Amino acid sequence: MSGDLGPRVAISAAENFVAAHPDVDLTFVGDRSQLQSLIEKSPSLLRSSACIFHAADVVSMGDDPLGALRQKKNSSMWVALERLRTGEVDACVSAGNTGALLAMSRYLIKTFPEIERPAICKSMPVTDGLTYLLDLGANINCSPFHLQQFALMGSVLAEVAGVVAPRVALLNIGSEAQKGTEVLQQAQELLRNDLRINYVGFVESSDIFSGHDHVIVCDGFHGNVALKASEGLARFVAKKISLTLQRNLFNRLLSFIASPVLAQLREELNPSLYNGASFLGLQKTVIKSHGSADSKAFMHALVVAREQVLLRVPEQIARKLGSGN
Amino acid sequence: MSGDLGPRVAISAAENFVAAHPDVDLTFVGDRSQLQSLIEKSPSLLRSSACIFHAADVVSMGDDPLGALRQKKNSSMWVALERLRTGEVDACVSAGNTGALLAMSRYLIKTFPEIERPAICKSMPVTDGLTYLLDLGANINCSPFHLQQFALMGSVLAEVAGVVAPRVALLNIGSEAQKGTEVLQQAQELLRNDLRINYVGFVESSDIFSGHDHVIVCDGFHGNVALKASEGLARFVAKKISLTLQRNLFNRLLSFIASPVLAQLREELNPSLYNGASFLGLQKTVIKSHGSADSKAFMHALVVAREQVLLRVPEQIARKLGSGN
Repeated sequence: MSGDLGPRVAISAAENFVAAHPDVDLTFVGDRSQLQSLIEKSPSLLRSSACIFHAADVVSMGDDPLGALRQKKNSSMWVALERLRTGEVDACVSAGNTGALLAMSRYLIKTFPEIERPAICKSMPVTDGLTYLLDLGANINCSPFHLQQFALMGSVLAEVAGVVAPRVALLNIGSEAQKGTEVLQQAQELLRNDLRINYVGFVESSDIFSGHDHVIVCDGFHGNVALKASEGLARFVAKKISLTLQRNLFNRLLSFIASPVLAQLREELNPSLYNGASFLGLQKTVIKSHGSADSKAFMHALVVAREQVLLRVPEQIARKLGSGN
Repeated sequence: MSGDLGPRVAISAAENFVAAHPDVDLTFVGDRSQLQSLIEKSPSLLRSSACIFHAADVVSMGDDPLGALRQKKNSSMWVALERLRTGEVDACVSAGNTGALLAMSRYLIKTFPEIERPAICKSMPVTDGLTYLLDLGANINCSPFHLQQFALMGSVLAEVAGVVAPRVALLNIGSEAQKGTEVLQQAQELLRNDLRINYVGFVESSDIFSGHDHVIVCDGFHGNVALKASEGLARFVAKKISLTLQRNLFNRLLSFIASPVLAQLREELNPSLYNGASFLGLQKTVIKSHGSADSKAFMHALVVAREQVLLRVPEQIARKLGSGN
């Protein structure tokens, strides 16, 4: 019901999703009449097993997470997570308020007993494949032990995606072993001595996109700064390119001739293809779609949710954590 | 003498610099015979007043900063800063070891008495103009008071560049006033109540390049992560574009036709144009060129040094700091 663009994005994404993945049954949670009228416009959803579960209230993007946790028990977010808790659904996808989704997920779904804090994790496009970056904002301050848990959870995501002994690095402001804060130094010690983790050392944020590491671990502040700085630069470059291509007749003509190539590039660099952040450490699958995600991006978040359920990511994380050191 | 590419980059940059700015006298500090043989290949430098000051040793890129500070008193870096200290030169530009340059600068040049810590500051290209980002790595942990001093120093840079009442923001992981760490909350209070600063609120790193703010203040870890993440993404995008343009005959032909436009774009997005980080808070001008800077980029660092001397940036900072609150 929320996100920057409201429920029509989710419905439109669902329309394409059910066509591609008829093995998944969708439940929409929110204002029944609004959702019903959107679904009625979609032949493929009408033919599908999709159903609606009514929720009267909505957590808005500006709501204080703890306030929402206390007061919005009739919100679509709460009701959807409640259905996940009871096992009526296998995963929950939301484009709503990140902090509220995290707070409600911790309260209703709970983390595994070994996990102190869930982490937000996202796959980033790199030169050759994907790199998992976590935490992206769930935890501002992390202890070395938290970072070790993030490393374990990120390794599981890379492993279920087919990577053998994923290379795990700690984000730092230098790659030399003696660099960084006390927390990073201690985390490095923990990771070096943890046989479950293929720790390779510190990495600078300039190398996030190099493809050298499969998992990059950091506290939520650093991860958030790195992710958003790269998003900001991408927007800046796209704007520069677009302005340059409009500058004069030759450039405009060229941009017309180049349109298939520009479309290829847009496709390859499309952030929609990387939408869908996982809340790792929860006992069930909760996926956060970007607040401003369009239909294609939201569809990708649904794909991520389906994969994580099929690959039993939460159970794999529990197994890895329980496997001792 | 150092940097990733050695002295030939500095000499080649100097060659273009003396042609453009005959008002500046250059002194090269380092191995005399090596520098002499490089200068002899340059007619414009031979005609200029450039001179050489011999230094037998070099701080290498991998040297520990404090070790270099204790042991490398015959290095080109030390000798250059010593000449700056005595007033024989007005500014020092180096592409060498950042940590060593910072440690030696603090020891030899010293900060103003009011300044607890110098900050590394760089102008970033934004949609319309420049934004000054600091600290970029000199200080891993900062107090609210340090961030306030960075805000003052960044404001001075923007002011001498012609901005009236520069808009100052604090980097955070959300733009809402209640977000972030305790340090950021306290820094916000200090900035709100400081009449010397036009504080506008928190900014997320996705908006660094938006051009909305003139000065963005953060601790050195966050600034370093933001700067390098954006550099990493820029490299990733450039590689994707280059691969796409080589993919097939049509694309290769297109890239040939588009070469003037691609050249324009490369020019506008060229990181060389933003090279040259200032060590603010020192009593004299020290400029750090990127270790991998090419000749054009190093030339820009020289331009920054000249501007800051002419605009009397250190003195302006002292004046602003001394002006009370």
